[in-house]
Amino acid sequence: MNPTRADVLAAQRALRGRVHRTPVFTSRSLNAMLGRTLCFKCENFQRSGSFKFRGATNAVRALPKDVRLVATHSSGNHGAALALAAHERSLKAVVVLPADANPAKRDAIARYGAEIVVCEPTLAAREKALAAVVAGTGATFVPPYDHSRIIAGAGTAALELLEQQPAIEQIWVPVGGGGLAAGTVLAAGDDADVVLAEPELARDAKDALESGEQRPALPPKTIADGLRTALGERNFAILRRTRPPVLLASEAGIQRWTALVGAIMKLVVEPSAAVPLAAMAENAENAPTRRSEGGLVGVILSGAGAP
Amino acid sequence: MNPTRADVLAAQRALRGRVHRTPVFTSRSLNAMLGRTLCFKCENFQRSGSFKFRGATNAVRALPKDVRLVATHSSGNHGAALALAAHERSLKAVVVLPADANPAKRDAIARYGAEIVVCEPTLAAREKALAAVVAGTGATFVPPYDHSRIIAGAGTAALELLEQQPAIEQIWVPVGGGGLAAGTVLAAGDDADVVLAEPELARDAKDALESGEQRPALPPKTIADGLRTALGERNFAILRRTRPPVLLASEAGIQRWTALVGAIMKLVVEPSAAVPLAAMAENAENAPTRRSEGGLVGVILSGAGAP
Repeated sequence: MNPTRADVLAAQRALRGRVHRTPVFTSRSLNAMLGRTLCFKCENFQRSGSFKFRGATNAVRALPKDVRLVATHSSGNHGAALALAAHERSLKAVVVLPADANPAKRDAIARYGAEIVVCEPTLAAREKALAAVVAGTGATFVPPYDHSRIIAGAGTAALELLEQQPAIEQIWVPVGGGGLAAGTVLAAGDDADVVLAEPELARDAKDALESGEQRPALPPKTIADGLRTALGERNFAILRRTRPPVLLASEAGIQRWTALVGAIMKLVVEPSAAVPLAAMAENAENAPTRRSEGGLVGVILSGAGAP
Repeated sequence: MNPTRADVLAAQRALRGRVHRTPVFTSRSLNAMLGRTLCFKCENFQRSGSFKFRGATNAVRALPKDVRLVATHSSGNHGAALALAAHERSLKAVVVLPADANPAKRDAIARYGAEIVVCEPTLAAREKALAAVVAGTGATFVPPYDHSRIIAGAGTAALELLEQQPAIEQIWVPVGGGGLAAGTVLAAGDDADVVLAEPELARDAKDALESGEQRPALPPKTIADGLRTALGERNFAILRRTRPPVLLASEAGIQRWTALVGAIMKLVVEPSAAVPLAAMAENAENAPTRRSEGGLVGVILSGAGAP
């Protein structure tokens, strides 16, 4: 069943004290460069290095008591998040990781005590390796994004952001599998509009939402390694109801804005987190209008990568 | 005249609303690695990219009204700080910069509207070029560290830190020219002990405080570019009264801890800011004892470099 706003609210209650209430940062320089008053939700400071820890914790806490082993496939962030969430509940975890995954993320997954199974960097290979793990060990699969509790947990970042700064009228998030995107749409409800940002090289969400049909993932070429997958089923079902606009970012723009967040805000973020800023800068003409001229704009800095 | 604690308190009142009250961060991972409960004062988020903005603003606000032009020499941070502080008071600024200065710092100084004069990377060359600027333009020299208002302004970072976390018993700061070191000693007073950290390749402060005599700067080889200068006169006079311990850090340690602060805390800091952590890690046996077993330890993350 698809999650609702009530599930995001329930997740927030359940996660209290288990996840960091990450701070909201502002930057006069970035406001000037992008022509908006921006509020950055710093999920790069979240435990395990990204917002993914919210969903993973929300999923793990709801597992039946007899589950002792969880497994997933992940480009890195969800793997690190699940490894830490499982560790905190004294569960074992197996993470299927593509061979080209970020070495820092791989190290973090190992440090959190999970077993790593390496596979080819395609969704098909990831799913096949995961199926073999589940068949061989009886592990419970905790999916990276197409899962009700993962979506609800991810939505708690936007819920918190709107509590911290209620004047926000529009929230920008990157979209890959769509956990953060769908969760943010549920969390925002009527309180704020949501704008999705996607690498040009991984534009399946834009094509899916504009055509009304799910699209397969494009070849995994973008440097925004967290956004290479296609929208999940539940994620697509939630997003097609409100059809938030999807703006594209070039690879050069993603690199440039990742570096600018470091140089100007002094924050370490991974390329996926800079995609909304790159898309904002590259779509100055056709960016969605805000509800009011001076309305505040939220941006979820989705992660730093693994710690 | 040498500044006193009263000057630091006066600086804090004067700087209110003009400088950022930077946040204090903690990290369970770094606590575990270093065996202490650490509180990081994030001056990497300070305006112009370092604590230097505190002293520069404190100095500029006290200039006679007829001063229209200020000048300084700087490895970068003080130059950026003075450029921005002058810009905010509609003053012009000239910054003498060594040829090997960090290009990002150089860009920031230019962006803040200051004129840059490049010189050889020695203190002698810096002072000579500065003297020529002052003689040729009538500019008022605002020194980088050997100046009462600069020291008092720098001390406001520790004063704030102790307000934010009164349980701190010991504060670690990097030492170069000694502005932050002397200011922190004044600010801490009897409330906390101060520990200085210095690159092995720039160990003049350690030698000076242990011998009781000022020492010349060593060849400017450390990657901690903000710490290449020797202690100033006023700075030495203040430090020799309380003689805080000086611990050394290797170049490899400075590099390692700069990277770890990025990887673990997700903060961009420059090598100088990581010197206290490197010194702490490398002096596990002979680190100064704290007043109590579980006493909190403050660390001033001096800067990120220019924004």
